[in-house]
Amino acid sequence: MTTAGSGGSEDSLRRRAAAWPVARLGTVGAEGRPHLVPCCFALDGDVAYSVVDHKPKRSTALRRLDNIRANPSVCLLVDHYEEDWSALWWVRLDGIARLVADGPEHERAIALLCAKYPQYRATPPSGTVVAIDVRSCRTWAAGP
Amino acid sequence: MTTAGSGGSEDSLRRRAAAWPVARLGTVGAEGRPHLVPCCFALDGDVAYSVVDHKPKRSTALRRLDNIRANPSVCLLVDHYEEDWSALWWVRLDGIARLVADGPEHERAIALLCAKYPQYRATPPSGTVVAIDVRSCRTWAAGP
Repeated sequence: MTTAGSGGSEDSLRRRAAAWPVARLGTVGAEGRPHLVPCCFALDGDVAYSVVDHKPKRSTALRRLDNIRANPSVCLLVDHYEEDWSALWWVRLDGIARLVADGPEHERAIALLCAKYPQYRATPPSGTVVAIDVRSCRTWAAGP
Repeated sequence: MTTAGSGGSEDSLRRRAAAWPVARLGTVGAEGRPHLVPCCFALDGDVAYSVVDHKPKRSTALRRLDNIRANPSVCLLVDHYEEDWSALWWVRLDGIARLVADGPEHERAIALLCAKYPQYRATPPSGTVVAIDVRSCRTWAAGP
């Protein structure tokens, strides 16, 4: 995996991102159209996991899975916004996604997500896991 | 423009999104790779504007512009996260982007951005404006 950063400490930004509760997942659909969804996620070394969970879904909510089947390149952006623009930062993970429907990696992903999110613990999600093998990590921070 | 929603009131979600301070812009780069950046934005009817501003930039920060020149399909996602998952919502704008370097539309976009963001007023941004002609708007909310 390649890494590159600008501003802030790269390690500290990566740690902050790993603990962040929300990311945005970008996939690419038919005719090269980008598709973005907010998602919960858990990092395990150089693999990022999210899951199709039990939050209510639109009928098109599984488009991310169709997109990944056709084009596994994905982008996971973790960022922080506030009114004080000197406090802004983001961490962008670019990688290749795999769909994991069951088995040991599915179990491990669900365990990691339940460890990070109390909201998952009462009813652990059982849907398809999106496993992203992170190929590059870019970090940015407005301040030092 | 087509619109479709699930949960919440579509109009109320669109109004909330218009006032929201941050969005994530998705473009598609070489070899069909998605690229995401957080951005400030202002809506003017069915056109969304953002600008390459004076926040410090990485050397690759203009990749969004290169991507748009090669493939103008973009996705702008506005969403809200909080620990109470029944309060989650998002508004996704899919459209076609144009790069506006100067002229009346550039001036209007900067005026709209300065009206929305006090941070822009002291030193209005002068960089290239990304104007997105929104073709479809999807809304989602976890709760009513």
